[in-house]
Amino acid sequence: MEGDPTLRLRIFDLNCWAIRYLSKRRQERVRLIGDTLRREGFDLVLLQEVCSEQDYSDLKVKLAGCYPFSHYFRSGVIGSGLCVFSRFPILDTLLYQYSLNGYPYMLQHGDWFCGKSVGISVGVTAPLLSLSLQLHAEYCREKDAYLPHRLVQAWELAQFIRHTSKAADVVVLGGDLNMHPEDVGIRLLRGWTGLRDAFAEATRFEGCKNGCTLVPDNCFTDKSELLPFPLGIRIDYILYKAISSFTVKCEELKTTTGPALGTDIPFSDHEAVMATLHIQRQGQPVGATHGTADLALVDVVTEARTEVGVGLRAAQRQRYSSGRMAVLALLLLLLQAAAALGTLAGLGTEQPFPKLSFCLLAFLALGVLALATGLHLFHTMEVKMLHGTEDQMWMALRALQEHP
Amino acid sequence: MEGDPTLRLRIFDLNCWAIRYLSKRRQERVRLIGDTLRREGFDLVLLQEVCSEQDYSDLKVKLAGCYPFSHYFRSGVIGSGLCVFSRFPILDTLLYQYSLNGYPYMLQHGDWFCGKSVGISVGVTAPLLSLSLQLHAEYCREKDAYLPHRLVQAWELAQFIRHTSKAADVVVLGGDLNMHPEDVGIRLLRGWTGLRDAFAEATRFEGCKNGCTLVPDNCFTDKSELLPFPLGIRIDYILYKAISSFTVKCEELKTTTGPALGTDIPFSDHEAVMATLHIQRQGQPVGATHGTADLALVDVVTEARTEVGVGLRAAQRQRYSSGRMAVLALLLLLLQAAAALGTLAGLGTEQPFPKLSFCLLAFLALGVLALATGLHLFHTMEVKMLHGTEDQMWMALRALQEHP
Repeated sequence: MEGDPTLRLRIFDLNCWAIRYLSKRRQERVRLIGDTLRREGFDLVLLQEVCSEQDYSDLKVKLAGCYPFSHYFRSGVIGSGLCVFSRFPILDTLLYQYSLNGYPYMLQHGDWFCGKSVGISVGVTAPLLSLSLQLHAEYCREKDAYLPHRLVQAWELAQFIRHTSKAADVVVLGGDLNMHPEDVGIRLLRGWTGLRDAFAEATRFEGCKNGCTLVPDNCFTDKSELLPFPLGIRIDYILYKAISSFTVKCEELKTTTGPALGTDIPFSDHEAVMATLHIQRQGQPVGATHGTADLALVDVVTEARTEVGVGLRAAQRQRYSSGRMAVLALLLLLLQAAAALGTLAGLGTEQPFPKLSFCLLAFLALGVLALATGLHLFHTMEVKMLHGTEDQMWMALRALQEHP
Repeated sequence: MEGDPTLRLRIFDLNCWAIRYLSKRRQERVRLIGDTLRREGFDLVLLQEVCSEQDYSDLKVKLAGCYPFSHYFRSGVIGSGLCVFSRFPILDTLLYQYSLNGYPYMLQHGDWFCGKSVGISVGVTAPLLSLSLQLHAEYCREKDAYLPHRLVQAWELAQFIRHTSKAADVVVLGGDLNMHPEDVGIRLLRGWTGLRDAFAEATRFEGCKNGCTLVPDNCFTDKSELLPFPLGIRIDYILYKAISSFTVKCEELKTTTGPALGTDIPFSDHEAVMATLHIQRQGQPVGATHGTADLALVDVVTEARTEVGVGLRAAQRQRYSSGRMAVLALLLLLLQAAAALGTLAGLGTEQPFPKLSFCLLAFLALGVLALATGLHLFHTMEVKMLHGTEDQMWMALRALQEHP
């Protein structure tokens, strides 16, 4: 932005739901997304869940003309499928994987295998930091076992943004945060980083009511999940802030509303979010009034820390019970070894154990021992990370109270 | 540093080798370290391998008077044991865990369980970024299977420093890098971040010859490992750089040389490194001449990328063979299931399988299936991370060649 005092930046964000073997009509939809992106000519495109590298390569070939710069972030087993397409050069990239991301044994909730992360790309016409990301999904709002993990992710994301954005002029974040606008994680992320919500700030809005991005009208969404929310929910966001002597305003925000132009299917089970930001070089960035903002922030961090504490205690209980299970399995194995040795030494020959049951029991004990040890190690790491986050939040609270 | 144009910063760095049940005379040594730190009154203390939180708490209590600010970084199963003690306030902390860190099944090399990471603390008398860290150990220099992992760690560390240090005045890094000074990983880290080696820059030096920190004279070191290096090796470093309008000079560098003052034991199996940095506010930071530095950097990044590529191909082979093993185990299980169904249906009753061997075989197949699947998933993640790093290095090379 050297020389030119203003810039209009058009951003496209979409959770593409392009998981091989799992997502319906994947190839057709990826083709459709590619065609639309080529036709519309955005400046910056942030995509999630493009889990097949082939799909990314196809998009890259198709979009080479209008988005000459792109990057694909690899992580996890399945991959988080984060990618960025840009009309302006991407100078550098960085991937940050959250330290907690669900449980590997919850196979039905594949989050752990995705290796959820945030991809950051620096560049685009001046120090502009753009982030594409996805946080852990919420599977049951009433009894949300993953809330502590999602809060750790929101906290790590906020810390990551604070530490990496200091030399940027403008930060733009687009992604599927898997949280409702009033949830503690969103308030934590926004409060701790100063990011502004494009939906709340937009001068013009067009799209699904309340900016919802998971709506019952979409033919791919799970209708039963959305029963308590007849209008849908808003979990995909474009957030932004100006760091140095720039101001950013959101002129327009749009969401898609079901089937794409000229077809019968939507892009994905999520609606796309499109923002037009107006970036201008001038005085100080427009900030919130800090006195009250800090007080509210103390409340949010305290609330988040309480939830992380709840998760910590649950993880400690799981660590304890898996450890106990491992010890019991080990004792059973030792007992069996003693019995086998006894039989070999000629004791109890009048009443020998049935060999088959004996072996079955030994294998069962061995299996339980391996599984319980694995679980114990996993929950030990979970406890450490939750404890570490609790500590960091406490330090943040102290800093907020001492240097408001 | 507002107002005061110069600052003399005394830094202490040590790999404490304080792993519960494994390290010899641990408590005695931790006490000794604490006593010395209290007596000497450094400004900044960066410790590694303080794996027991109890040891950290004891140190914290002992050092509360002269180092009122401290932080302990939690990670992994055993923990990387990173901690920082500081005479000046620590405003913020951040933990970055490397995406690759050895293999969980290499139990004898416990690196995976440590969750190796870099702990960053911001604060200390003005934007000073201090990092405490440890990279994956080298177990066999001739056939170093972990070199690609260590290079990924060095690259991630360098990227992390580049992205987080932009608003800092001075960056200080202290840690056990597990690399010799001329190794490609060190050259990559130094070249890509511009960090300067305190040993090479120091005006005065006092300590083990060549600045070695793992020496045969230390009673805790493994003498056989050091046979090819009669003087020892230098793998612990203090690196630094000035970012904004500051200059940093290393006035003095010292290492310990065996037993601590008034005792018969050294602090650890590593020698401590102590630097006195002279920080001054003035003109531009003294940088290397950029033309030749960039050319050398291209060579280093190319060399590192080649090594990462070698690791990538090894990981792909391991992924393939573990996948094949899982498929074979699955086929065996299916065959057994078919045989069992056949027996149930009354076929082959004249020659029934011996039940015991049948069950043993089934459990064996099940065990192999579980293990091979786990390995396959692990190596899939490894492939993704190595591939991602290779990509990032390629992008860096392109940027270096296009905008030197």
